Amino acid sequence: MKNNKHAFSEAERNAVYRAIKERRDMRHFTSEPIDKDIFNRILIAAHQAPSVGLIQPWRIIRITDQSVRMAIKNVVNKERLITAEALADRQQKFMKLKVEGISQCGELLIMALMDQREQHVFGRRTMPEMDLASVSCAIQNMWLAARSEGIGMGWVSLFEPSDLAEILNIPVGAQAVAILCLGHVDEFYSAPMLELENWRHGCPISDVLFENSWPSDKA
Amino acid sequence: MKNNKHAFSEAERNAVYRAIKERRDMRHFTSEPIDKDIFNRILIAAHQAPSVGLIQPWRIIRITDQSVRMAIKNVVNKERLITAEALADRQQKFMKLKVEGISQCGELLIMALMDQREQHVFGRRTMPEMDLASVSCAIQNMWLAARSEGIGMGWVSLFEPSDLAEILNIPVGAQAVAILCLGHVDEFYSAPMLELENWRHGCPISDVLFENSWPSDKA
Repeated sequence: MKNNKHAFSEAERNAVYRAIKERRDMRHFTSEPIDKDIFNRILIAAHQAPSVGLIQPWRIIRITDQSVRMAIKNVVNKERLITAEALADRQQKFMKLKVEGISQCGELLIMALMDQREQHVFGRRTMPEMDLASVSCAIQNMWLAARSEGIGMGWVSLFEPSDLAEILNIPVGAQAVAILCLGHVDEFYSAPMLELENWRHGCPISDVLFENSWPSDKA
Repeated sequence: MKNNKHAFSEAERNAVYRAIKERRDMRHFTSEPIDKDIFNRILIAAHQAPSVGLIQPWRIIRITDQSVRMAIKNVVNKERLITAEALADRQQKFMKLKVEGISQCGELLIMALMDQREQHVFGRRTMPEMDLASVSCAIQNMWLAARSEGIGMGWVSLFEPSDLAEILNIPVGAQAVAILCLGHVDEFYSAPMLELENWRHGCPISDVLFENSWPSDKA
């Protein structure tokens, strides 16, 4: 193989792969505040994400008001109970899981899709949901940046967007897609928490990798 | 600030931030093949992504058949013309942009949402589209892994999913969401290509950062 002048050094590559491997969707936090410079770096990482047609459709609402935080917590509690009902036979197991760390985490953010996205057609004509894809890339950047800083992050999607819209004055056409809890942690989980709790186990990569066609025995 | 035992070293953190900052959505590739070990590491990075309810909804179709690659190229060409029409006054400017590198790139992948997602309610009851969010996190992992390896990647969303379903035998309930071009590049763009081409310019982070509420002057 020729030398690739664009490749990072081995140490740098290892650091990137370490962040990817050791990132966890966290629900357990300590209440220690996040250093301001670290928090800013994590936010900048979000804003450096790719976006369809370069529209940067993410809007980030930082929650510093304790009463707003508690209102958000209540929205999630409500959806948690409705989800439990919908899970039928797994209801009890679900109710034992810790699904969010909203009360404890050092920083609470709401990530929302901007309004007036219908103006932007490039890369979205057949799949308007590509705006959510862009916001998700921004969130993954934050997750990896946070992990490298030793900060945990969790993405909570147990909420009714209209409930958050009301609390946060989110306009028509915009939509909250994530409640992000960020904070210090005692430990990062050694494996995804849902595996440790025996909720579900990941599959080997060979199960998701096909060649040239979707295999007929999986269709 | 207390020492955080979970934080990476400064050099490691810098490497993660370098990948985030220097990642580009690439459309220009050389035809040099990608080393097999590097390609495998990039695929494993995808599979280490977070996913809603740990359902790992991504399916990756590697295209090694040249006729399939050309059929995919035709699907994108078709949508490119329809998008151009829809862009009205920006049609000519759009048609001058290079929007994909399907013919040249070393590896071509289709990322699809798995079928039978309706079984999975956890974190998706109010927002079933969280499965796309998970796939997008997997793609962002690949983008950063690829960048650290000196490999460019581009996400093409100019296609009609039903056209790809026909070519690739994608079953009902599953859906292609990305055509990913991966390959060696002469240079990574110094800024997003759409900025270099004056299609659109990014905004400062202060434009997207709010506190406690969506500001009324932006609603």
